[in-house]
Parts: sequence; structure tokens; C-alpha cells
Amino acid sequence: MKSDISGFPEFMPNEQIAFNKVVDSIKKHFELYGFVPMDTHSVERISTLIAKGNDAEIYGLFRLSNESKKDLGLRFDLTVPLARYVSSYSGELIFPYKRYQIAPVWRGERPQYGRYRQFYQCDIDVIGNESLSVEYDAEIVFLITEILQFLNIPAFHTEINNRKILSGFMKTIVAENKVAETLKLIDKIEKITSAEFDEEAIKLGIPQENLKKLKNFIDARKRRGNVEILMWLNSLDINEEYKEGVTELNNVFQALKKLGFEDSLIRVSPKLCRGLNYYTGTIFETVFNDINDVGSIAGGGRYDNLVEMLSDKKFPGVGATIGISRIVPKLIEKGILKADLFTSATVLVTTQNRDFIVSYMRIANKLRGMGIKTETYLQDKSLGVQLSYASRKRFKFVIIANEMELLEGTAIIKNLVTKEQKTIRTEYIANDVAEWISHDSSQYNR
Amino acid sequence: MKSDISGFPEFMPNEQIAFNKVVDSIKKHFELYGFVPMDTHSVERISTLIAKGNDAEIYGLFRLSNESKKDLGLRFDLTVPLARYVSSYSGELIFPYKRYQIAPVWRGERPQYGRYRQFYQCDIDVIGNESLSVEYDAEIVFLITEILQFLNIPAFHTEINNRKILSGFMKTIVAENKVAETLKLIDKIEKITSAEFDEEAIKLGIPQENLKKLKNFIDARKRRGNVEILMWLNSLDINEEYKEGVTELNNVFQALKKLGFEDSLIRVSPKLCRGLNYYTGTIFETVFNDINDVGSIAGGGRYDNLVEMLSDKKFPGVGATIGISRIVPKLIEKGILKADLFTSATVLVTTQNRDFIVSYMRIANKLRGMGIKTETYLQDKSLGVQLSYASRKRFKFVIIANEMELLEGTAIIKNLVTKEQKTIRTEYIANDVAEWISHDSSQYNR
Repeated sequence: MKSDISGFPEFMPNEQIAFNKVVDSIKKHFELYGFVPMDTHSVERISTLIAKGNDAEIYGLFRLSNESKKDLGLRFDLTVPLARYVSSYSGELIFPYKRYQIAPVWRGERPQYGRYRQFYQCDIDVIGNESLSVEYDAEIVFLITEILQFLNIPAFHTEINNRKILSGFMKTIVAENKVAETLKLIDKIEKITSAEFDEEAIKLGIPQENLKKLKNFIDARKRRGNVEILMWLNSLDINEEYKEGVTELNNVFQALKKLGFEDSLIRVSPKLCRGLNYYTGTIFETVFNDINDVGSIAGGGRYDNLVEMLSDKKFPGVGATIGISRIVPKLIEKGILKADLFTSATVLVTTQNRDFIVSYMRIANKLRGMGIKTETYLQDKSLGVQLSYASRKRFKFVIIANEMELLEGTAIIKNLVTKEQKTIRTEYIANDVAEWISHDSSQYNR
Repeated sequence: MKSDISGFPEFMPNEQIAFNKVVDSIKKHFELYGFVPMDTHSVERISTLIAKGNDAEIYGLFRLSNESKKDLGLRFDLTVPLARYVSSYSGELIFPYKRYQIAPVWRGERPQYGRYRQFYQCDIDVIGNESLSVEYDAEIVFLITEILQFLNIPAFHTEINNRKILSGFMKTIVAENKVAETLKLIDKIEKITSAEFDEEAIKLGIPQENLKKLKNFIDARKRRGNVEILMWLNSLDINEEYKEGVTELNNVFQALKKLGFEDSLIRVSPKLCRGLNYYTGTIFETVFNDINDVGSIAGGGRYDNLVEMLSDKKFPGVGATIGISRIVPKLIEKGILKADLFTSATVLVTTQNRDFIVSYMRIANKLRGMGIKTETYLQDKSLGVQLSYASRKRFKFVIIANEMELLEGTAIIKNLVTKEQKTIRTEYIANDVAEWISHDSSQYNR
């Protein structure tokens, strides 16, 4: 990745091909589950963007020719646009509405490692009208995991929890108006010392005995497996909200197990908070087991009241986001996604005699007719320059023909990897090349 | 299409599926020719955006938290970003660099029919280092035509010309510093009366005898076919620039013919100008034969000096743009692109017994394993509600099973179009359904 404006990175061509392949795979999986694409405009009313009281750095728009009108801004996520879209067009949509959106968002933040001012979000959500069954939560977690496995993401697991467990429990620990702050404190527990944690907890008015209960709750996961922790959670008699959360978490967990989820892929984690304050039920976060400097791979959860902020109707939803703008560069950097091997096309038709230039173009068209990505080299350069171009751009095959071959109706095809070559008749060239490619087992992508 | 903010239209789900299918087909064709995706950031420095002296209405950005810094703006086309990308990263790129970019652009214009403040551009360009052979011009025109035919665009043709013909000729008609304005006048000739044209021509200082020559040139096409007009153009002895233009136009035309271009698809048109002032050679514009209210379908041309404005090196290019944001809604409106028939998935697995909910999800997973787009209806609703959902969303097949069937290991599959149904064993369900679908010939997309 390069960047000519701070915070706005851009891919080089082979990286872009790799990124797009990842995006295409993700789309294909989303669509296999019946999710439809959505593409909201990049611009929202500023009043909509700040409706949730979000403090993300928003970019406002002004017209160069008229600086006074400043009521529009760029979206900072895809969730606010989803809520706005659903509330605007709810009469036209069929619920449950299952949509995905893979698109850039903008944040006017100070650029720093791993934080960009423009990056892609890759979001999937199911929105119900009035109600939405908890099995959709399981479906989303299952689908995200299936995608990450398909992408050969290195060892990862998904932490899962339910906001009702946390907030039900917290109400027995701290005053209700301090619950949100306490959750924020728990969210950063791994980044601060134990003493700092205690100090902040006391500031929030948590009595000493409750602090002990709180720490016990946070640490509960440490000595227990998934089934044990679920049993332990189930054994605590706290309040209705808490119980509801345990039941939902248990339902999601059981569904995932029955769908064939391996135990190592999931980790019930009662202390998982997820920062965003609109979650109301299931929450989950997928992280690498062994890579620590990228943050989460994916995450999401249930939000029952999001659209309500923009509408007087109830549209509960559950969704997830895959952090493609962070993950893909990391996969390339680690050599897991071999961007170097992603090429623009499979075959380069070289050109030697300018009088026959259209004949070369027609050979290329024949190959394209078989679905083979083919470029014709149309510049007036020596064959040597063309072959060097072919190997720098990692074409796998070149077609070589001069006047004599063309008049005879033949051409030479050469495999640039194995160095094998043979003469073929141009009238059968499409089938011949297609067959040659299909028998080739080298690792280049096609 | 709907719009909740003036000038920013949004698709409904089935329209979005239709739009994406068009985009995917276009991408596939671009890639068959060895073009690679490019995705520049949406934001450019304002100094870059106004470097060409463009008067497009530019949206500048400001940060809500810090209104003072206003050096960035949103791109208004994809050509300026291309020039900036090439000049920034020319050391990393391999030339000729063939890229496509399909992405939104923004213009703060007053919204009016067919003009949006955000719309997609779909651009393809070849950039050479120092030189670029004219056959690339032919390749681009050929490729664009192939795509439009693939998309079943109603009857269209491509007007083609060369800027050097126009500007060489114009230098014999009007003072050199009035050539650009004269071209603008010709560009709008169909929108004004003959008297208005004469009046403006005289204002530009065109003498009476030259005005006659000019009109003769503009009308030359009327009584001549392509070959005749090329011969006529060739017969005029005007100046070197003009001659070069005729030779290039002839080369492009001959290449297209030899590539199998039908005569009805192309129209040599010496008066074609194309508005943008950066074109220097081949120019072309594809229009509907019979639909008048959409403007051009596609267009483009050769620009030898564009990148020079941002760099001291020479990177000549040739490119085209397809007006997808204008065409696709028109094709939907005319019923050519049947958006209503585009569905989210092929199969809906209905659910009747909540205790078996995971069994339904597993049936769906089996179908997905065969590449069949499948949704599981996970809400707790009656079968009647689910079947109505299936028909409103135009699923083609539903799977129906209650406790009894599931315990027996069977399910009913029903074709919602033909109303046929049969009982199948769930263990073979994926193969059975795949086979049923493959034998189905109704017009629904899969």
C-alpha cells in the first residue's frame, strides 16, 4: 500500500486484485445466504450522522462555489445509513430484510498505525419488522466464520456474550446511571493495570464487596470451558434481564454447536462488551489466536432499538462487520495472501509485424471467447521488450507469431513458468490453449 | 429509484441486484482484456481537482471539529484521480497500464432530470509511457461495443472522429485562439437554430466564406456512408495536423472493420467534438438509435497530455466511460432489464417446528454447498406467512417440512412458478434440488 495523502492509502494493482478477490468471495457467501446488496449514497444529513450522539470525527461537505450550505456530511459507518435507509423505505422493503454493504466510510481522525481516514466496511445485517428471532444471531456468526475459513484466515476464534447478561449483572454492582461507564472500563481492562482498574471502579462508586463480585465475574471464564461457563452463568440467580441474556446466549451457542461449529472456534466470554452502545443482546468478536497487532477480524451483535432513533417503528436487527481494510493488508504482509501472484491476465499475445496487428487482436478475441483473460501487446516494441513485460506482469502464457506463422495459420504458445512451448494452428487456438491451461497445475491464478 | 436527499438517488433491493449484475458483466469483460481494477480514494487535494481549470461543482470537505482546514475535496470524475495516481506511482506501475475503475463521483450541481449529485462512473483507460499505439483506441471502442451488445442494450451506434481533424480544419476557419470556442459552438449545433449558429459564428470572427466552408464540413456526413466520408476527408489538403487525424481515424476504422465491426454500428462523424478539452486524437460517442432522452451511452477518446498537468513526464492515454448510472435506470424503466425478476435467492427453506430449527438451517447449508442461493426463514410465523414472503420475494422454490417429515428424513420441494412439488430425502436434497433447478427453464434468474 502507498499513500499520497496522509490517512488515505491506495493499493498497487496486484494488491487491488487480491483485495477484490477477497471482497468477491465474501459477497458470494453473503449471497448464498440470501443477503442482497445495498448501496446507500456516501452522503448523509449531518443531523442523521450525529443523531446517535456519536463523536466520530465527521467530514462535512461544502460547495466550493457556495460555502454557506453545510448540512451534508460523509458517513462514518454503514450502520447509520442502514438505519436511515430502513426508516426511509420501510414501506417498500420486505422483512426480514437481509442486506450486505461493502463500501468506504470516512473519518477525519488523526492518522495513525492501522487507522485510516477512508477505509472499507463490510457489513451484513438482518432487520426484522417488530421482531427478529435469535436464530438469525447464530446464522450471522456461522456465516462469518464460514467466510473466514474459506479465506484461509490464520487461526482465530470468536468470543461471544450477551449484553443483557452484562447489564443485568451490572445493575447489582453499580448505580444504574454508571453501568455504561463501568462497561467501558471493563472493555479496556486488558490495556490497564489491576490497580488502575480498581481505582477507576472506586471512582464509579462500586463498593468494595461488589468490586470483588465484579472481578470474580470477569475472571470466571479463566478456569472454565464453554459448557462449564454456560452452566455457571445459568446457576446465578441475578434478575430477569440477566436470565434472558443467559437463555439467548445458550440458544445461540447450542445452535452453533448443532450446525457443526468446532469448540475451538468459539469462546463464551461473559466479560466481552463491544464498545458500541447500541447493542442490546448477542455480541461477538472474532480475533486471531496468534496475531496481536491487528485488532479484531470481525464483530457484531444484536441491536433492537437502532432504527427507532430515526423512526417511530420498531426494527430489531442483528449484524456483523468484517474488517477487510485492516485484514487484507495484514494477510498480504504476512504472505498469506500472495498478492505478487495475482495477475491481470493469463495470456499475452505478442505482436511482431505491424501489418498483421489486427490478426493478433483476433487471436486474443478467440481466447477471450473461451473465457481466458488475454491481453494483446499493441505497442511497437521488440519481442524482447514484450517478453520482459510478460514476465514482469506474471503472465503465464505468451503467444508468439511472426508474418510466416500467421500466413501459415500457426502460432507458438509458450508457458513462461515451465518454459515448455509448442506450435498450434490458430484456427483451433482457443480450444488448444484452454486445454493446456486446464492441465496446468502451477500455482498461478488464472 | 428513490431519493431521500435531493440529487442522491438510491436503488431498491431488486434494482440494486440488477445494477450490480450489469456492473459485474462489465467488470468481467474488462478483465478478459487484461484490465486491472483500480480504486483510488474518493478524496483528492483541492489543488489537484482544480488543476485542469475545471468548473464542475466541487464538494470540499471540512471536519466538524475543526472547520479551518479545507484542502481536500471529493472527486468529480475518475480521470483526474487516474492522472494523479499515475503521476504519483509511475515508478511502480508497468506500462502500458490498463486499468478500470467503477466508482461514485460527486458534483454539487443543482439536481435536475438525469443529473445527480452522486453517480457512478465506469471508466476504462490504457496509459502508455512516452507513447501509446493507436490500436489501443480501436481495442477500447471494440470492447465497449462488445459489452453493450452483451448487455442487450437497444439499437445503438458509435460516432467516431479525431480531434486533429477538427482542430486542423478549424485553424483554416477561425483565429487559433477561437478554435476551442468554435468547437463548443459545433458541439451544441443540434440544440440551437441555424440563425443562432450563424450569429455566434460571426461573433467568433468567422468570415462569411469560411462559415460556408464550416457548414459544408459539418454537413459532409449527411449524404455519405463511412467509406465515402473517409475518402472525402482524405481528399482535402488542409494541413499536417489534419492529415495526421485522417490517418489515425482511418487506422482505427479499418481495424474495427477487420475485427468484425458491423457497418451499422459505427458512423464516422467529422463534426463530433466531445465536450472535454483534454482529448487530442480519437474521440467517440455511443448513442441509442431510437431513445433520445438519455444522452450518450458511452464515450471517450485519446488524451496525450492529461497526466502532464501533474507530472513532467509524458503518459499518453486512451479511455472510455460507460454511463451506467444513467443507462441502468432507463433500461429498468423500459422493461429491458427486468429488475422485478431479480431475486435474493433461489430457494427458501420454510420452518414449522421451532424445536427443529437447526435441522432447517442444516438443509439450507447443504443446498449452499451446491452453490444454490438459499435462505432459511427463521422467524416464528405461520407457513402461510412464509409462503407469501416467498412469493413476494420471488423465490423460485420452497422447501417444506414439519416434524414428521424431518423425523422421516424427508422434505417437500415445491416449484412456486409451475406449482409442481415432490417429496425428497433430505440426505440427497442438495443433488436433487440442484438437478431440479438445472432442468428448469423458466426465466427467473438463479
